[in-house]
This record gives sequence, structure tokens and C-alpha cells, in this order.
Amino acid sequence: MSEPGAALALPTDAEMAARLTDARRRVAGVVHRTPVATSQTLDRLTGARVFLKCENLQRAGAFKFRGAWNTISRLPDAQRKRGVIAYSSGNHAQAVALTAQLLGIPAVIVMPSTAPAPKLAATRGYGAEVVFYDRVGEEREALAARLALERGLTLIPPFDHPDIIAGQGTAAAELFEDTGPMDLLLVPVGGGGLISGCSLAADLMCGERCRVVGVEPAAGDDACRSFAAGRIVRIAPPETIADGARTPSLSPLTFDMIRRHVDDMTSVPDAELVKAMRFVWERMKLVVEPTGVLGLAALLAGRVEARGQRVGVILSGGNVELERAAGWLAGA
Amino acid sequence: MSEPGAALALPTDAEMAARLTDARRRVAGVVHRTPVATSQTLDRLTGARVFLKCENLQRAGAFKFRGAWNTISRLPDAQRKRGVIAYSSGNHAQAVALTAQLLGIPAVIVMPSTAPAPKLAATRGYGAEVVFYDRVGEEREALAARLALERGLTLIPPFDHPDIIAGQGTAAAELFEDTGPMDLLLVPVGGGGLISGCSLAADLMCGERCRVVGVEPAAGDDACRSFAAGRIVRIAPPETIADGARTPSLSPLTFDMIRRHVDDMTSVPDAELVKAMRFVWERMKLVVEPTGVLGLAALLAGRVEARGQRVGVILSGGNVELERAAGWLAGA
Repeated sequence: MSEPGAALALPTDAEMAARLTDARRRVAGVVHRTPVATSQTLDRLTGARVFLKCENLQRAGAFKFRGAWNTISRLPDAQRKRGVIAYSSGNHAQAVALTAQLLGIPAVIVMPSTAPAPKLAATRGYGAEVVFYDRVGEEREALAARLALERGLTLIPPFDHPDIIAGQGTAAAELFEDTGPMDLLLVPVGGGGLISGCSLAADLMCGERCRVVGVEPAAGDDACRSFAAGRIVRIAPPETIADGARTPSLSPLTFDMIRRHVDDMTSVPDAELVKAMRFVWERMKLVVEPTGVLGLAALLAGRVEARGQRVGVILSGGNVELERAAGWLAGA
Repeated sequence: MSEPGAALALPTDAEMAARLTDARRRVAGVVHRTPVATSQTLDRLTGARVFLKCENLQRAGAFKFRGAWNTISRLPDAQRKRGVIAYSSGNHAQAVALTAQLLGIPAVIVMPSTAPAPKLAATRGYGAEVVFYDRVGEEREALAARLALERGLTLIPPFDHPDIIAGQGTAAAELFEDTGPMDLLLVPVGGGGLISGCSLAADLMCGERCRVVGVEPAAGDDACRSFAAGRIVRIAPPETIADGARTPSLSPLTFDMIRRHVDDMTSVPDAELVKAMRFVWERMKLVVEPTGVLGLAALLAGRVEARGQRVGVILSGGNVELERAAGWLAGA
């Protein structure tokens, strides 16, 4: 099996199951075992028994820390010590930076020069070096590749690696372990790393019983289209407040995982995301970002049949500028 | 020992310890065992190891459900069935309403006609009958007493009862049980029910080791003054965004508990509450109300010596109008 930085081959289910088992052992005691939130009001609104896995309360504010820690901590010693690099202005950046800090190794994060000040501050707060690019075309990948080569850094991809996927899958594994099997699992979809890992965990821990449904923003429904077409569909970078799901396409690896383990895909417009955010902030006292409520928004908007079922929902992250969120909520 | 609705005698420590033990058994499986949140950033900022007990994630959004459930569920059958009444526009109202709903008994809540629409909707959502009063003088107590008499309802006081206090104390008891003993426990103070119960739990479970410090808003520091003066000091209803701590004075019962179990009292201005709210919302992804961050604000503002210590902080509630909170945070 390849390591980050090398070319990837599509892994078998048995290989991925072994990676998930290894990831569970590796993240224990380092990632937060995040709580599962329930709400009588939510159950009444949906007619289901709903369990929200609170990855917004994960270290660095999102599930991304699971994959970053799992991937970086298992790099061979000599390679790990030279350091890591990632390109992201979002949750992956902070996850990689925090992991590097905890392991005492250098981290370089390639960010757009227009990145919001709080995200920049948080990334630097974890001790990472930030290198700016000018946000034109695909320059950041080239810049990251050049820096990786020059400094001997390992590039940590945001979703396209078996260890990233296995790490993200530990979120669903904990949910099943803490609350029992589900009939339905709703998971946000950007590049597909989270749903690849979570659908694998669902197959292993709940079997046929659990339907897994991925949810995208309506403006960026490339994975829905890919799922329907049976091949990877690429779209222009979408306009949506769900900034964690602005990826233009799945990767061959995540598409393969989704094809084998996911039962359906759906999408919700941004207005439904704002409604779901208001519910979670106001009634459940949790700060979630728009991408984080994709699954819940699909449930509340009736995009999935859930009545009478046990429904797991991954609240994937909570990194959002309060001022922007207040603006959306005021307009709702 | 008296029941709600009857006159109160000051209980001994042994009696209160027995009530706390009974409360722990009684709330188990009904109240949420709320998570304890930690943050590397918070520990770095304070030089302490900080554990936040997330009562904002409690059912009905605040610790108040603990005391309401504990008190109402142990009423004799015939008395309980006739129903309960409370006067509150805040967290106690929702706690009593939810408890009554779960027990299948009637609840009447006396509220000001100016109560915010979301609080009114939440209280009615739990099935309670809302009776308005016109918010002049002490009318609401008289109105509640009259309704209680006419309908045979039991009045559930917001803080002035041993079972309310014992119920609130289960929050600190869970914190110690889940994370071990503390060197310092910071607790918001309004009428003093929460700190009475929590300081009792600290004495029983951590012994001399744990200093308990109560925190009030600077504009409403009646308990600080009472603590210093050695007698109950009453103030005019204070102007502060910490609406859960606008009580004009402690009661003889809570003052007695505080004198015996609390080590110190301090206060923080509203501006520090807003700063602490921003930290908790932005970095810890938790929606907390101004009253809820009193303890954390004292810690962040350096009002208590905490360096090198294990510090427990009760985040008491999260019921806040998002629009108002956004306004405060925008001004910070």
C-alpha cells in the first residue's frame, strides 16, 4: 500500500477494514471521543430517533484531525521528522498544523492570500508556517509540490488517501460503538474522504441494516451526478456557503469507495443549510458550520425517508466566522 | 424536611449530603450526563488544566432541569398529579415545563408579558400553560401563589429549596466523577442554588483540596457583598446581560450553604462576559449565554489564581437569542 506522496492504487475492502482497525487504535487517546447529541424536539420534528455525532467539538474544530493524525503519525520516523505540507484554507489546514505541533515536526500550509484572518491566526497558532499563493487556477498544488520537493516535506492530501479515509471513518465507528447500530447514516460530502470512511465503518459494524446517504450542497452536486452517472463528473467550483464541500470532484479512490459502500446521494440548497444551522445553534447550543449541517438539513427538509428509524448524522465541523454566520441567520 | 410549598428549615450538612446522594440516583438516565470540554488553547491561555462542564448541552438548555426534575419527581403521587407552577421568564420555566411534560402532569408558568418570543415558544412547546403578569413590583409571586391555591398546584421555587440545590449539585458531582478531583471550581451565582449544590459536592468529593469560587456580574454583586458582610445584602434589580444572575439577593438557605462551603466570591464586568462568550463560541463551538460564562470570564480575566491547577468550570446554560448575542459579539 502506498504512502502519501506516492501514487495510489485502489485498495480492497479487506485492506481498508484493516486500515480502519489500525486507525481506531491509533487515534484513541489523541482525538477527542466527541459526544453524541440527542434532542426530543428533533425526534418529534423528524419522527425518527436522531443521534448527532458532534465532530464540531473535535480538536481543531472538525473531523479532519482524525485523518490528519492517522496519516501523519504512521509515517516512517525519518520521513515524518522532515515535516509535512498541505494546501487548504480550511479545516484540513488546522488539522495538519495541530498534528504536526503535537508530534513536534515542521508543518507548511499553503493558503490563499485572501484567507480569513481567524483561520490564518488559528493555523499559525498551532505553530505552522503559512505560505501564500495568489488563488489563480491550480497554482497551489504546483507550489505545494515544489516546496515539498525542496524541503523534503510529505504532502498530506485532504481526502485522497486510504489512511485519511480510515481516520475519518473512526467518527462513525465511535458513533455505532456508543449508541448501537443505525438504520440510516447521513454524511456530508466534499471530496468524499469522510463518507468513504464512514460508509466502510457502517458496512463493517451495522451490515445491511444501515443505509448510508451522502449529502451535498445543491450548487455543488458533483458527487450526486457522479453517483448517478457511474463515472466521476467534474463541475466548476460551486458557489455555496458550505465551503467544505466546494470541491469540484471526487477522486478515483473516494468514488470507488462511495460506489461500493454508499446507498444513495442527495443535495440541499443553501437556504435549508441556514435553517438547520439555526436549529442546531438555537436548540442544541452547538456552533456548526454550513458544511457541518448538510446531513441534518437533508433530514429536516425531508430529502430522505427516516420515519421510525434510528438515524446517525455526522455534524462534521464548527469552523465558521461568527459575523458571517450571524448574517446568514439574520436573513433566515 | 419540608417539601416545596411548605416553610423551610435550614438543613444540616448530613441532610444535604443524603439529598445529593438521592438526587444522583434520581436524575440518572433522565438528565443528560453532559460532556466535559477541554481545549489546549484555553490551557495555554490560563496556565491551568481547565475542564468545562457543558450544562448548556443539558436538556432545555441549562442546569435548571436537574433541580426541577429532582424536586418534582420526588413529590408524593397525589400532590404531583395535581401539577406544578413556577414564575420565570428564563431557564427555570423551561426546566419545570419539560419536567412536567415528561411526568405527564400539568404545568403553569407565570411570565412577564414582555418575555422574548423564543422563550415563550419553547415553554409552550413543552406543553406548559403560560400566564402573563405585567412585570410591576412583586406581583408575579402573588399571582403564582393565588393560582397555586386555586388549582392545587405546587410552587417550584427557582433556587430556594434543598431538593433544587441537591439537583443542581449533580452537575459538579458528574464533573468530579468523570475527570477526577479539582483544585478550583468556578460557578456562576444568581440566587445561589447552583453554587450551593456544587460546593456541597466539591466538599464531599474533593475535600479541602478544592477551592470553590462563585462568580457574579459586576453590576449585580449582591452575593459578593453578602459574603463579605456576613449577612444577606439586597440590591436593586441589576442591569447586566447575565440575565440568569439578575436576582436581587440570596435566600437564607443559599446564603447559609455558601457561607459553609464556598471559599471566595468575585465578579466580572459584562465586557469580560462578551470576551469569554466569543472564546467559547469561536474556539470551542459551544453556544453559551452570558450567565453561563461567568466562571470562565473570571478565569480569563485573571480574577482568580489558577496557574498550575486543575480547574473545573460550570458552563451553566446556553439559552440566548442568537440575534442579541450577535449584537454583543459584533461590539466586542
